[in-house]
Amino acid sequence: MQKIKVGIVGGTGYTGVELLRLLAHHPYAQLHAITSRTEAGVPVAQMFPSLRGVVDLAFSDPASGILNECDVVFFATPHGVAMAQAPALLDKGVRVIDLGADFRLQDTAVFEQCYKLPHACADVLKNAVYGLPELNREAVRQAKLIGNPGCYPTTMQLGFYPLLKNNLVDAGQLIADCKSGVSGAGRKAEVATLFSEASDSMKAYGVSGHRHTPETLEQLRKMTAQDVGLIFTPHLIPMIRGMHSTLYAKLLPEAQHLSNEDLQSIFETTYVSEPFVDVMPFGSHPETRSTRASNMLRIALHRHGDTVIVLVVQDNLVKGAAGQAVQNMNVMFGFDETAGINMLPVMP
Amino acid sequence: MQKIKVGIVGGTGYTGVELLRLLAHHPYAQLHAITSRTEAGVPVAQMFPSLRGVVDLAFSDPASGILNECDVVFFATPHGVAMAQAPALLDKGVRVIDLGADFRLQDTAVFEQCYKLPHACADVLKNAVYGLPELNREAVRQAKLIGNPGCYPTTMQLGFYPLLKNNLVDAGQLIADCKSGVSGAGRKAEVATLFSEASDSMKAYGVSGHRHTPETLEQLRKMTAQDVGLIFTPHLIPMIRGMHSTLYAKLLPEAQHLSNEDLQSIFETTYVSEPFVDVMPFGSHPETRSTRASNMLRIALHRHGDTVIVLVVQDNLVKGAAGQAVQNMNVMFGFDETAGINMLPVMP
Amino acid sequence: MQKIKVGIVGGTGYTGVELLRLLAHHPYAQLHAITSRTEAGVPVAQMFPSLRGVVDLAFSDPASGILNECDVVFFATPHGVAMAQAPALLDKGVRVIDLGADFRLQDTAVFEQCYKLPHACADVLKNAVYGLPELNREAVRQAKLIGNPGCYPTTMQLGFYPLLKNNLVDAGQLIADCKSGVSGAGRKAEVATLFSEASDSMKAYGVSGHRHTPETLEQLRKMTAQDVGLIFTPHLIPMIRGMHSTLYAKLLPEAQHLSNEDLQSIFETTYVSEPFVDVMPFGSHPETRSTRASNMLRIALHRHGDTVIVLVVQDNLVKGAAGQAVQNMNVMFGFDETAGINMLPVMP
Amino acid sequence: MQKIKVGIVGGTGYTGVELLRLLAHHPYAQLHAITSRTEAGVPVAQMFPSLRGVVDLAFSDPASGILNECDVVFFATPHGVAMAQAPALLDKGVRVIDLGADFRLQDTAVFEQCYKLPHACADVLKNAVYGLPELNREAVRQAKLIGNPGCYPTTMQLGFYPLLKNNLVDAGQLIADCKSGVSGAGRKAEVATLFSEASDSMKAYGVSGHRHTPETLEQLRKMTAQDVGLIFTPHLIPMIRGMHSTLYAKLLPEAQHLSNEDLQSIFETTYVSEPFVDVMPFGSHPETRSTRASNMLRIALHRHGDTVIVLVVQDNLVKGAAGQAVQNMNVMFGFDETAGINMLPVMP
Repeated sequence: MQKIKVGIVGGTGYTGVELLRLLAHHPYAQLHAITSRTEAGVPVAQMFPSLRGVVDLAFSDPASGILNECDVVFFATPHGVAMAQAPALLDKGVRVIDLGADFRLQDTAVFEQCYKLPHACADVLKNAVYGLPELNREAVRQAKLIGNPGCYPTTMQLGFYPLLKNNLVDAGQLIADCKSGVSGAGRKAEVATLFSEASDSMKAYGVSGHRHTPETLEQLRKMTAQDVGLIFTPHLIPMIRGMHSTLYAKLLPEAQHLSNEDLQSIFETTYVSEPFVDVMPFGSHPETRSTRASNMLRIALHRHGDTVIVLVVQDNLVKGAAGQAVQNMNVMFGFDETAGINMLPVMP
Repeated sequence: MQKIKVGIVGGTGYTGVELLRLLAHHPYAQLHAITSRTEAGVPVAQMFPSLRGVVDLAFSDPASGILNECDVVFFATPHGVAMAQAPALLDKGVRVIDLGADFRLQDTAVFEQCYKLPHACADVLKNAVYGLPELNREAVRQAKLIGNPGCYPTTMQLGFYPLLKNNLVDAGQLIADCKSGVSGAGRKAEVATLFSEASDSMKAYGVSGHRHTPETLEQLRKMTAQDVGLIFTPHLIPMIRGMHSTLYAKLLPEAQHLSNEDLQSIFETTYVSEPFVDVMPFGSHPETRSTRASNMLRIALHRHGDTVIVLVVQDNLVKGAAGQAVQNMNVMFGFDETAGINMLPVMP
Repeated sequence: MQKIKVGIVGGTGYTGVELLRLLAHHPYAQLHAITSRTEAGVPVAQMFPSLRGVVDLAFSDPASGILNECDVVFFATPHGVAMAQAPALLDKGVRVIDLGADFRLQDTAVFEQCYKLPHACADVLKNAVYGLPELNREAVRQAKLIGNPGCYPTTMQLGFYPLLKNNLVDAGQLIADCKSGVSGAGRKAEVATLFSEASDSMKAYGVSGHRHTPETLEQLRKMTAQDVGLIFTPHLIPMIRGMHSTLYAKLLPEAQHLSNEDLQSIFETTYVSEPFVDVMPFGSHPETRSTRASNMLRIALHRHGDTVIVLVVQDNLVKGAAGQAVQNMNVMFGFDETAGINMLPVMP
Repeated sequence: MQKIKVGIVGGTGYTGVELLRLLAHHPYAQLHAITSRTEAGVPVAQMFPSLRGVVDLAFSDPASGILNECDVVFFATPHGVAMAQAPALLDKGVRVIDLGADFRLQDTAVFEQCYKLPHACADVLKNAVYGLPELNREAVRQAKLIGNPGCYPTTMQLGFYPLLKNNLVDAGQLIADCKSGVSGAGRKAEVATLFSEASDSMKAYGVSGHRHTPETLEQLRKMTAQDVGLIFTPHLIPMIRGMHSTLYAKLLPEAQHLSNEDLQSIFETTYVSEPFVDVMPFGSHPETRSTRASNMLRIALHRHGDTVIVLVVQDNLVKGAAGQAVQNMNVMFGFDETAGINMLPVMP
């Protein structure tokens, strides 16, 4: 089988370099172009010595037209970039997977309020598919344009989904206390994420409002007829990779008779065929490192009276970003869904 | 003024060595004895080179009787030790501050269930004072025997207190999602807290039940006539010191008219005279390092509809253990409450 | 092609679990048995959740005889274990790769002085091959028994080798200032490697004598006719994986005319065909993370007058232990040398 | 006694905020002004919440003239700032302590080559005193202008000094393999020192030339009549604070008869009266954390044949910068040399 040609826009950030790691050895895809306005001409392996001897490409000028030669292009860029460039690529028959926020929200009013930008291509957006394969696999299979989910929303959706779709909990009182490694803040030079600021310390941030809330709400609302209310509290943790979401939901009166075994069984059944969702034994305490550098997301259930506590861990750069994007690519092109992303977690 | 003589039982753990750091320069107290069964005769500064040239004591045999010469003895020991030894010291007129769990819970049935040990001196326990000076200063002033609060309970109590004593929130639905640095697990050789296990990763633990829950419940119940229900979820974070508690409470219908300014004002008024509680501006995101190596606890309020979110940070070894113990000593002996513990946080 | 059957003795430590990660997806080998006296019957994935769904084995009792069914057995054990068990396995035709120290030193007197143990099988030892494929590939190809090099010695040998075999430097004045991540200390419960002891701090250790010195000396002596003198100073660094060796060697008078380009060329030529040795451009500063979780070792040259400074980085658990062991297995069995160990470094 | 008035220029970096921590509680000095061009008017405690309730100053405009009211002004600024502003302050009778590089090197040609700037006040420079009190106390006592030593040079000088002044080692072959925590790179927004870049990894940097080499050479040359040759290799270590210098020096033939006890005695005698230099027992392995947040520098000797290995640890922000600056101030003003800087190291 001939390999598909892959392009990456914005290969200098963490999701970009993670795409490179995953795609460099993909059995059915080959890296064809990586663009960067500021680094055009620079060998990729010079910026990222971890890729020496494996990735021979240099950064291309995004204006060179090389992306038109690709079968699929990943945007690992800040919001605003993909919506400016995706329509032309789609017109050429290139499929697009945006790891940024431009194609996640169908509600453009919310998008504009959240990102302080008018949406550049509302028409195209209508055909975008929200790329969470576990919940949306058929649509992904047909998609030409994918909005790849945010890292936090991936954990919240997969953690709450079995409870909401089965109408077991009060959807109006969901709490998600989430903790992320620092790589989630990206590879931008900023004082707040310097080693000497962020290590041996932690803090909450964006408690009064984070851009992942509307994205999550839009998706949770598809799971249930109830009104959805979500309190989402993100925290910054001194680790490079890793995300731990601690989710709280109150069982509805009609579901309070369920035993722990019943709840466990509902989760296990929901995800029984999923290659990248692991439901651990009831009462487990998953560590983020049990998913480090892998595409696996792990879930464990606990219960306190009528409150279900769902613990969800993943690697924010893999299942929370680049790995999920490759998973979407695999589904879109009919490849084995695990191709190129079945590496084991790195422990310790 | 002559300095009081201080003894420490169990000076080889983290709370013990932190007591040494704080007491070595205390203006009104002098270290008189540090006991350790296993290290008797070893100079303290040999085990802890940070104390070279400052602490000249060697560890004493606890059986030597030297503790009887002290004005006050701190127990920085696992549960069970203090309740075995405190009664004899109290009989000699020595005051006792236990940093362990033996004198925190008045309900011996709960104690025994929690710690799998019968309480050795229920009579003495009746006279023990729970040593959270901000809530209990007068009793501490009179006390001969102090049960020094646990680290998590300190944050939960000081964070919920203004809401509960003013009857603003539903006491039956409290959630405390708490995060602790690894030093909270003590200086025991264990695989789970090895550097290679605990760094660059995080996890929840004890979700189904932690010994700090009953202690906190017993104290929260004193603040309100409502039934108290608490979900407490501790997490282990890859930092040495530091604790971040994210507290969720729902405003009662009769309190929902309160503005953010009203809530802020209630907290500021409650702690206006407290030297070690800092109420930050509404909407702040305190970092744990803003309290590192200091006795300060900081609080910031947020609100999401009818839910109040209280962020509380402290150094688990200082305000959460040794610093609070010295604060109690200062109150008990009529010293300036900040004596010896007014050092500034270490930043970065 | 039928896969060979692999056994692992001592699968509960870090080199053991790293072997599991590498071998679980090896194209020509399959895990057949993992033994642990203390954990017999326990599913491996229960101890290491990172392996859930991939490694289905349980730990076997080492006395069960199951190791006799293997084509090759790895010992990831403390010294003393392999030399007790290897002879019987070899007699059955099972090949043995010892990741411990039992078969690294041919000089049993030095072994016994160093490890305070008589060598249990000096006869067998004579046929052991020191498994550094870059320097010893032909012997490895023929070997039935491999002593897999120590982590530090791997960096020192590959860093000094081009200088010594070409007789460019004074072999009597070698200095190796080496830095290791904490995983090198193993997965033993010890106070010194607790997170709260080893993080945000560093120290030298074993400056007056480390067991890797005699191993390195024995090998360096094979490279040159000169007398060899080595000062080796190991340091413990707060990172999980990674080793950085800073090597100092003085050019002999007859080599001082060499230009930097000449030196660079000598190194590049030496390692031009090596899949796992990367000679970076002269004057580079390799980061340990550029090898994280991969089998790559990177070298960069600097010069200060007549002193050559060689910087060498690797992942101590991969090229420094488990990866090199699999590399040896590949060579021994005639597989592609990179099979199963060509994964890219994890960055960030 | 009336407190002296202290000004700080550049209070927004790590050495600036560390000066604030040390001076806020100094018994004989009071903070009078902190200037920052970019932050004028902003309360200092808003930028550094660790100072809330203790430091009430706001940043001043450096053009306001407030520094003229001070008895002493500290410059915690990049090179170039102090030499532009110090002369005018000195003319007003204000003493100046520069924590940057402007007044460390007497050789302006070397300065200009190193810092790519002409020296702005060579006349004033002549009267500057190099502020390493252990080696230069009398001159410091008389000084109006201090060039405060760099962090690395402090360790190299205090480590080599007893060997060089007693002419025990070959001064032409000194090697300093040094390791620094990341705070040494300052509080600038840069990709290379982001948490996700610098944690769980390490590297050498500036191997071919670091600005601290000429400063160290100029000082080492004062200690000996021999020609001095120094190889200085700095490394970046994933810890916030802390510096570990591993120094190698070869005993001269006439000194090779010295026993380890002799060497130890020479070091102990040299520093016997020093409050901030601790010579540990021969063969010790000092940890950087044994000096964390304190002004103590610790030294331990090892020996390998004719090579002496000196291990030196300090907190790079305290004895390596702000603490040493306050020590200089204490000496200049005739205060107890330990005033305000005798806090114990923070452990763990």
